[in-house]
Amino acid sequence: MHPRVLKALSVPLLGHLDPEFIRIMEETKSLLRYVFQTENALTLPMSGTGSAGMEACLVNLLEEGDVAIVGVNGVFGTRMVDIVERCGATPIAVEAPWGRIIEPAAVAAAIKKTKKPKLVAIVHAETSTGAWQPIEDIGQLAHDAGALFVVDAVTSLGGLPLLVDAWGIDACYSGTQKCLSAPPGLAPLTFGERALAVMRGRRTKVQSWYLDLSMIEKYWGEERVYHHTAPISMNYALREALRVIEEEGLEARFARHQRNHQALKAGLAALGVPMASQEGHQLPTLNCVSVPAGVDEAGVRRTLLEHDGIEIGGGLGPLKGKVWRIGLMGEGSTEGNVLLVLNALERALLHFGHRTEAGTALAAAATVYRNA
Amino acid sequence: MHPRVLKALSVPLLGHLDPEFIRIMEETKSLLRYVFQTENALTLPMSGTGSAGMEACLVNLLEEGDVAIVGVNGVFGTRMVDIVERCGATPIAVEAPWGRIIEPAAVAAAIKKTKKPKLVAIVHAETSTGAWQPIEDIGQLAHDAGALFVVDAVTSLGGLPLLVDAWGIDACYSGTQKCLSAPPGLAPLTFGERALAVMRGRRTKVQSWYLDLSMIEKYWGEERVYHHTAPISMNYALREALRVIEEEGLEARFARHQRNHQALKAGLAALGVPMASQEGHQLPTLNCVSVPAGVDEAGVRRTLLEHDGIEIGGGLGPLKGKVWRIGLMGEGSTEGNVLLVLNALERALLHFGHRTEAGTALAAAATVYRNA
Repeated sequence: MHPRVLKALSVPLLGHLDPEFIRIMEETKSLLRYVFQTENALTLPMSGTGSAGMEACLVNLLEEGDVAIVGVNGVFGTRMVDIVERCGATPIAVEAPWGRIIEPAAVAAAIKKTKKPKLVAIVHAETSTGAWQPIEDIGQLAHDAGALFVVDAVTSLGGLPLLVDAWGIDACYSGTQKCLSAPPGLAPLTFGERALAVMRGRRTKVQSWYLDLSMIEKYWGEERVYHHTAPISMNYALREALRVIEEEGLEARFARHQRNHQALKAGLAALGVPMASQEGHQLPTLNCVSVPAGVDEAGVRRTLLEHDGIEIGGGLGPLKGKVWRIGLMGEGSTEGNVLLVLNALERALLHFGHRTEAGTALAAAATVYRNA
Repeated sequence: MHPRVLKALSVPLLGHLDPEFIRIMEETKSLLRYVFQTENALTLPMSGTGSAGMEACLVNLLEEGDVAIVGVNGVFGTRMVDIVERCGATPIAVEAPWGRIIEPAAVAAAIKKTKKPKLVAIVHAETSTGAWQPIEDIGQLAHDAGALFVVDAVTSLGGLPLLVDAWGIDACYSGTQKCLSAPPGLAPLTFGERALAVMRGRRTKVQSWYLDLSMIEKYWGEERVYHHTAPISMNYALREALRVIEEEGLEARFARHQRNHQALKAGLAALGVPMASQEGHQLPTLNCVSVPAGVDEAGVRRTLLEHDGIEIGGGLGPLKGKVWRIGLMGEGSTEGNVLLVLNALERALLHFGHRTEAGTALAAAATVYRNA
């Protein structure tokens, strides 16, 4: 987190209906519209983590008997399928191996085969695999079939281009603790006109009271009708984090993420640690890399944590024990962090028998930075 | 909030599966068991506000076709009925006028009349009316009928006696921003053995993925199976707030709440502002008082907010325009705050034509403090 965000957390509380807090809510909505690149009126932070944002999108749009097409190539697509089922709807999974993208043609084929899909949902940035899903063309495919387009932007919002309006995204959600660099606990969400029309035309009440957007939009809207109590301190932090993003500018921010990713990737290649996600579709925010043969996967992570104070992720599901996941998100995507993790990893690999010349990784990264 | 809690919020983030954060989770669970007065293993803060706690209790325990008996004498009982319906269950409302308690005999009669109630749910401290519900005997009534006993302790936990184990409460939830004096955003929750048995014996999946305790207990338990990302900063704050409570001690804390309530009540009586909630069942944490005839209800609240920086609540539902709600919760329940609000209210009432001698309210409060 930026020091200004840490500081915002420790500001004394206002009442959640205090006029001053309402001003903060309005500013936050406006800044969220900027990062989502949308004019959607219903753009706000839900009072839960990114997973609550996922559930909010699905429970507000789906009713019993609906059919939803879901891209599944990692933990979060799998989770969407689970939630679709809990809504009493039928999921049609479009699958790809973990680490690879889902081909838009496969989505198109599924849409064509499915009778009246209610929505098409896909993960923009799969945190569990590092795959960067192309989504620009899926909105049109969905709309042509009369379906809504729902996007999980948890590890993309604020870290890579995401154009909610231009790409025809009808409902989108994220989390605060990834590329926005606020603490975890809120789920930015935006609903466009098509999604609102579906929501307003429901036959049944939304199964979750807590996530019912028809009430939450009145609380965050001009009516200020009490629903729940917004997490005040978290909203202070989110607003400040969004202000930091606005000051940097999205374009500069995306370029920074890309530059640090390229430097990390070059350094890792020099160490003999290849990317595990699909070439040409690798996230700059979450770098998923293959553990070299013979190296103690968990041992390296433990060494980095205990010796260097660096936490990198292990693999999940079918990737367990096979990959490391190195996050370079928001405030964490810095030249200093890239150099630090490369040097620490080089040292840890040596300790576990994977030998390279001292400075090999750093030199490769330096070349990228020099040419950037 | 206590300054130590504000400070805890601004501590840099740990990863949510970092061993150090896991230590914090364990300490928080242990401190929550103390404030809930329970030995329940499944005692943890849900990652949402108090309303998410309410929904979590109901969606994990109810299935389609179940019957739930719900006490309704304010906003929060009404909300429980709504959520019960969204679970596909049938609510049996036991009603009382807003401001009055629900007679345990009325609950007993409803239990007797109902075939196989799955649970009996009641609000311990109705924030919307100031009624302090007696709940000590309801657990036994529920258990005799084979039902679970569910308690909303949002405005009671940490402010008035609540003995989860001794009173046979099977599921209980609260919020962090009331008498615990942490920021809003988490919902402490505890489930006992009987509730766990019902949860484990479900025929269907819990309709909410985000609030599914069968997964959340594995995340907060020894398995540490990833579910969502816990709101780190909020958990720092909650732990610190609970430590402050443990240092004061629950008994001393309850006595402080009671003493300040009595002083406020005496001062208000001297001003000609009577309590609106039922005599003998008035919450020390939320003082609901009748607006004197002819006084501009909203004008007084606005004056207090703009002139004195004091926010008091207006009435909700049938009490709208008729009452003020004065919170004295946790860190906010102090002699200084009682004297401040009494003096400011005396002045505001004078401004709106309700005349008393200067210091009338303060003298009455002083007498209570002298004799306490």
